[in-house]
Amino acid sequence: MTERVLIIGAGFGGLTCATKLAKKGNVDVTIVDRHPYQLFAPLLYQVATGGLPEDDIAYPVRAAIPGVDFVRGDVVKVSLDAKNIRLEDGRVLYFDQLVFAVGSEGTTFGVPGVAENALQMKNIREARAIKNQLLQTYEDVEMGAKPKEALRVVVVGGGPTGVEITGAVSELQRSMLREFPHIANEASVTLVEAGPRLLLSFHEKSSAHAKTELEQLGAVVKIDSAVDRMYPTDVHLKSGEVLPAGTIIWAAGVAAPKQWSILGETDRANRLKVSDTLQIDDNVWVLGDMAHVVDQGGNPLPMVASVAMQQGRYVAASIEKQLRGEKIEPFKYKDKGQMATIGRRRAVVELPNGMRLHGTTAWLSWLGLHVFYLAGGRNRVSVIADWFWNYVAWGIGPRRTVID
Amino acid sequence: MTERVLIIGAGFGGLTCATKLAKKGNVDVTIVDRHPYQLFAPLLYQVATGGLPEDDIAYPVRAAIPGVDFVRGDVVKVSLDAKNIRLEDGRVLYFDQLVFAVGSEGTTFGVPGVAENALQMKNIREARAIKNQLLQTYEDVEMGAKPKEALRVVVVGGGPTGVEITGAVSELQRSMLREFPHIANEASVTLVEAGPRLLLSFHEKSSAHAKTELEQLGAVVKIDSAVDRMYPTDVHLKSGEVLPAGTIIWAAGVAAPKQWSILGETDRANRLKVSDTLQIDDNVWVLGDMAHVVDQGGNPLPMVASVAMQQGRYVAASIEKQLRGEKIEPFKYKDKGQMATIGRRRAVVELPNGMRLHGTTAWLSWLGLHVFYLAGGRNRVSVIADWFWNYVAWGIGPRRTVID
Repeated sequence: MTERVLIIGAGFGGLTCATKLAKKGNVDVTIVDRHPYQLFAPLLYQVATGGLPEDDIAYPVRAAIPGVDFVRGDVVKVSLDAKNIRLEDGRVLYFDQLVFAVGSEGTTFGVPGVAENALQMKNIREARAIKNQLLQTYEDVEMGAKPKEALRVVVVGGGPTGVEITGAVSELQRSMLREFPHIANEASVTLVEAGPRLLLSFHEKSSAHAKTELEQLGAVVKIDSAVDRMYPTDVHLKSGEVLPAGTIIWAAGVAAPKQWSILGETDRANRLKVSDTLQIDDNVWVLGDMAHVVDQGGNPLPMVASVAMQQGRYVAASIEKQLRGEKIEPFKYKDKGQMATIGRRRAVVELPNGMRLHGTTAWLSWLGLHVFYLAGGRNRVSVIADWFWNYVAWGIGPRRTVID
Repeated sequence: MTERVLIIGAGFGGLTCATKLAKKGNVDVTIVDRHPYQLFAPLLYQVATGGLPEDDIAYPVRAAIPGVDFVRGDVVKVSLDAKNIRLEDGRVLYFDQLVFAVGSEGTTFGVPGVAENALQMKNIREARAIKNQLLQTYEDVEMGAKPKEALRVVVVGGGPTGVEITGAVSELQRSMLREFPHIANEASVTLVEAGPRLLLSFHEKSSAHAKTELEQLGAVVKIDSAVDRMYPTDVHLKSGEVLPAGTIIWAAGVAAPKQWSILGETDRANRLKVSDTLQIDDNVWVLGDMAHVVDQGGNPLPMVASVAMQQGRYVAASIEKQLRGEKIEPFKYKDKGQMATIGRRRAVVELPNGMRLHGTTAWLSWLGLHVFYLAGGRNRVSVIADWFWNYVAWGIGPRRTVID
């Protein structure tokens, strides 16, 4: 009987693994996911700020990879002994090889008030909620239903996600000056980071660039500022300072889903500690944001798409080798550099050779890479059209609205 | 004091009127609408079938016309004597000239079961509901949560809207064969029309073309078939025939909002009977779908965008003339022809000179005209990108998904 490979998660890691296995054609590949689409998560912040329609970052996954079956469902139980998984609706799927690639979700790190008062940005529904709140607040203030202070936005977390959403909110606020001339100058955005600088995983010079460019866009950046607790309209820092906010966006941390910690030892982000071949059992592979893997220096690999994709290719190749009875070499991460965009023609990019870019050059590299990796041709065309328009029409016309 | 012109409704008629008045610059123009965007209603059916994202047909109206103020609100009362209107939240706006252009809404004509069981398609929320139901039904049937019969769609109403949505559903169902190979061949779409032919306002030959082309796409067309009543999974015809349906779409009629009938005599579609200068009072103008106006042959003008736009321009010019003390000539409708699209490279077009087109030529005219009239540059670019992709990638890849 043909080897059955079951992949849980249709993200960057799971889909890359499936594509590579399907090309060989000698195993049965099934992907399970609770959504019928691949989410292009690195662009969620653009949906959250009205730059792109949701459809542009959700690529239908059914029939997307010839030869790969798709099952939509929520996995509630994994039985490594019985070699099966159970879905929420009771269906049971059997496997010979299991690839675990469910990604990560937002985490509050136990800070009081975050769950109740802050918006997170890990899926389309959450990004839509941020967009609706940002735009609706202008409507409400204009109509007198909310005070002008409601236009203040606080973003918590100075990693790439926090930097990107802060820059995009800043640009959104500037563009709103035309549509709401009487109130829009009351809007502000403050980025709060607990550590000593933004983009801690980047070089200090890139961190400094990011801070300067955000400030040029009009954002306030507060480093060494840990959040103590939050309320509906206030963020309280450990220093005692209180930041009033109509919208609070939490971009301070992600973690693997807690429910899979039962499968083995985990780190503080619930990531499963895996062997150097990304396994937790002979026929069970874990990859992407779920897997705790360290680089040569002993640091855990970042939870980003390029790591997941490399691991997806590695696991596909390793399954093939195992089938042929060959020895499996340990996974080696190839550093692809890192990047964060700050705004239009503002970004920081670090290449693996140590080269650092910022400004327009960096922004264009960011743009090209993201367009290149967008899953579907249709989405690529739409995104290019939207970005092109945002770029050439900057400041000419209104471009987003509250659709209810 | 400058003359205050208050326009209720940011549709084709209201915005055309506002744009023309603003160009002269000698009156104060304010537009009131419950939504902060102009809806490009002729393309709602594309949103309902996943061809376009919602953002593409909703153009932000604030700051869209230089010199025109926008007030978001729901008008609940109009006092012609006191020359003011009241909004739902209590605000009162005064006017010297009132332009009434609130458009139309779906009507069930009292057919039992329509309100409870059929989906209508007059706004974005309704189009989104149709899209979600069409796509979610495939997911539900695939998972065994619904029987295959749920994939049957019945559309009621053989006017342009009914023909367009039937063609688009048919194409959607064909494209789903790749994504759901085990179930998608159970899908069907039936168009039901009470009259003797489709597109009653078109020439008989165009009606015949539309029927043939829909049938070529796989749709079933039933003429002379009035709906008697409907239930959640059945449409009962007056003939006694019962059509099972998982999704029922009601495209059989629109009417002006009933609440404004208090302002004067109305026809059976609640349209206000206006003078030949589109007035119901010296300083109160009514235009677009709200106004009952007859052509030279005594037939009421159709409720379409081109009529509303011509009337918007006419009312703007008439207000200017009134201000200058000039005589106002009666409104004269210039026939611009009519068109309905059936599918990719399938449409019928009738030009005012009596020329009739169908097939690819007609479809390209339809495409060009709609792109031309899309309100904003950004939307135009996005729509072209999406359509281009739909056209060149036809059958190559999946292109829509359920986003929840």
